[in-house]
Amino acid sequence: MTAEQIVDAMIAALERKDLDEAATYMADDIEYDNVPIGKVIGPAAVRESLEPFLSRYTNVEWRILHQVASADVVMNERIDRFETATNGWIEIAVVGVFEVADGKVRLWRDYFDLAAATAAMSVA
Amino acid sequence: MTAEQIVDAMIAALERKDLDEAATYMADDIEYDNVPIGKVIGPAAVRESLEPFLSRYTNVEWRILHQVASADVVMNERIDRFETATNGWIEIAVVGVFEVADGKVRLWRDYFDLAAATAAMSVA
Repeated sequence: MTAEQIVDAMIAALERKDLDEAATYMADDIEYDNVPIGKVIGPAAVRESLEPFLSRYTNVEWRILHQVASADVVMNERIDRFETATNGWIEIAVVGVFEVADGKVRLWRDYFDLAAATAAMSVA
Repeated sequence: MTAEQIVDAMIAALERKDLDEAATYMADDIEYDNVPIGKVIGPAAVRESLEPFLSRYTNVEWRILHQVASADVVMNERIDRFETATNGWIEIAVVGVFEVADGKVRLWRDYFDLAAATAAMSVA
């Protein structure tokens, strides 16, 4: 699999809220950095930060606006969409930077405006 | 010039605060979107928003952490650094998305955390 295919597969698994599969694409020392919030290290910590968040939503869809990849770096501009139980979809504008080595994601850094994301997520 | 060379040249001109040269790389209908703030259209509007900002600093240096390009899209992860007259360098973590068509930048969209940028820029 290319770096781009690995990132695509990890994101597809997250959209299905399949954290078990998503973790298979992560390096043991993956750095997951939500830039305005902070970083965690390792698949277990990624899961701990994503699972409670994703479980709040009935559907998850990350639309790719632009994506460019080299042999070991993938960058994508996304609209991360989350369907709430009662108030439709919320959207967060995000850019992700991914480094892939030995077939695993070892860096995932998401850039977004924290105030905009917090406002979007305040809708239940 | 490739899309990547055009973006690199535009950024190099901005680091020199040479808005005249930077404008030569911009399409007439360039969309310049500072995502958490808003967008402006056209080289004159880009200049109006960047020139007063860049002129506040004695030196401007945008360090590229990652950059990936295709034929018409360039994405870069940057630390935009600005030297203040009396308080050293300030830094803003940014990701840029650029679309290039017919040898000109027609879309430039920068993602960053507005609160972090505002705090950094409050240092004179």
